[in-house]
Amino acid sequence: MFAEVLTIGDELLTGNTVDSNSAFIAKKLTERGYWVRRKTTVGDDVGEIEGVIREILERKPEVLVISGGLGPTHDDVTMLAVAEALGRKLVLCEPCLERLREFYRELHERGMIDDPNLNEARKKMAYLPEGAEPLENTEGAAPGAYIEHSGVKIFVLPGMPREMKAMLENEVLPRIGERRFIQRKLLAEITDESKLAPILSEALRRFEVRIHSSPKGFGRYIGIILFGENEGEIERAKTFMESRGIRFEEGW
Amino acid sequence: MFAEVLTIGDELLTGNTVDSNSAFIAKKLTERGYWVRRKTTVGDDVGEIEGVIREILERKPEVLVISGGLGPTHDDVTMLAVAEALGRKLVLCEPCLERLREFYRELHERGMIDDPNLNEARKKMAYLPEGAEPLENTEGAAPGAYIEHSGVKIFVLPGMPREMKAMLENEVLPRIGERRFIQRKLLAEITDESKLAPILSEALRRFEVRIHSSPKGFGRYIGIILFGENEGEIERAKTFMESRGIRFEEGW
Repeated sequence: MFAEVLTIGDELLTGNTVDSNSAFIAKKLTERGYWVRRKTTVGDDVGEIEGVIREILERKPEVLVISGGLGPTHDDVTMLAVAEALGRKLVLCEPCLERLREFYRELHERGMIDDPNLNEARKKMAYLPEGAEPLENTEGAAPGAYIEHSGVKIFVLPGMPREMKAMLENEVLPRIGERRFIQRKLLAEITDESKLAPILSEALRRFEVRIHSSPKGFGRYIGIILFGENEGEIERAKTFMESRGIRFEEGW
Repeated sequence: MFAEVLTIGDELLTGNTVDSNSAFIAKKLTERGYWVRRKTTVGDDVGEIEGVIREILERKPEVLVISGGLGPTHDDVTMLAVAEALGRKLVLCEPCLERLREFYRELHERGMIDDPNLNEARKKMAYLPEGAEPLENTEGAAPGAYIEHSGVKIFVLPGMPREMKAMLENEVLPRIGERRFIQRKLLAEITDESKLAPILSEALRRFEVRIHSSPKGFGRYIGIILFGENEGEIERAKTFMESRGIRFEEGW
């Protein structure tokens, strides 16, 4: 059961913005038991986005979460690119248009914009790939989209972190299942790294857990993350590794 | 002249670590005039890494920077995967082995590790793909690698940010050319987003600059980044856009 994450934005490719969105999305998917197999970032370019979506669909993930490029500016082209990649048309979502009208009217009433009307740039946001279900944006203008295509659940979310996070929690997670994974972070104190690998491998065989390890400093500590469906299984895996000589400290 | 960035690590795919490395690398490449076309992240898995490197090489970037997975632990498999992707053997780099011996001896003398000897896990770091040039790690144990393959300059760097940054500055940037791009960040105050696009397009046609835009808040401001080879050209592009009615504020 694997998932992929695609983030879109020139600012991510020039290094002007650190992509914390994909980490947030990956964390939530991991907690739901998905193996996030790959994260990709491309710029605001229809051809690039379309190409990478086709590649991802060929790998047949169960879930694909896309974030970025839904706004009113000229380089917000994600919905168009998604439509092209799926061979669908962009069609007007009437309720989305109505909500956008409401949204800008309200911003205008609060004195935040000069013009309350839906110009072409704003209207663009109401067009979704044919057959898509609109996802509500409680924090901003652009709606998201949910599309099932060739067995892949595709979610298209805004790039503004506040909007993306709210939509992920409210609209995406309820659609991808109930299973929850928990994780526990440990520091393993070891004096010989080469002794660790066989112990981890044996723990993986014996228990229903996943284990990630990464070095923390030089030689003395290895950061370990244990993933499992319940605390009991994680505890059993930990106890087993201790019985093989690993000393753990909690957290890092 | 485009580049790609590949970051490797399970912790990036579980969302436990935000991938700031790829932003740093992308920024430095952009400053050197490279268009970073795509960033990809995969986990510590030989097959996944090998597969994605093959895909990237097919797109024929001029530069590929890979970061992560060079350490001594069992899931540090990047060098092996790079070798497999390129159809090369892993071969022992004698000077690297000597330096590792020195490195651990010194750590031991400073009381930071119990065992100064080169066990198998530590020795592993001295193996590089055949024909690779070792890149010096001034901040840690694992050497990096520089490989020219089918016209692509491939750099393999550690994942620890301090080690990666030093190696990028000292070993990578001097090997990829002298050209330097500069960037200027501006806030464009506009009351109608749809008027911005044609002005940006005309500026792109008239001047030797690249322009990235992204919304900041709702409607009033658009963040603009102007890239160019010198301040003069950037200033001329800015003046032109002002003459078309855009009001700029500096910085964001």
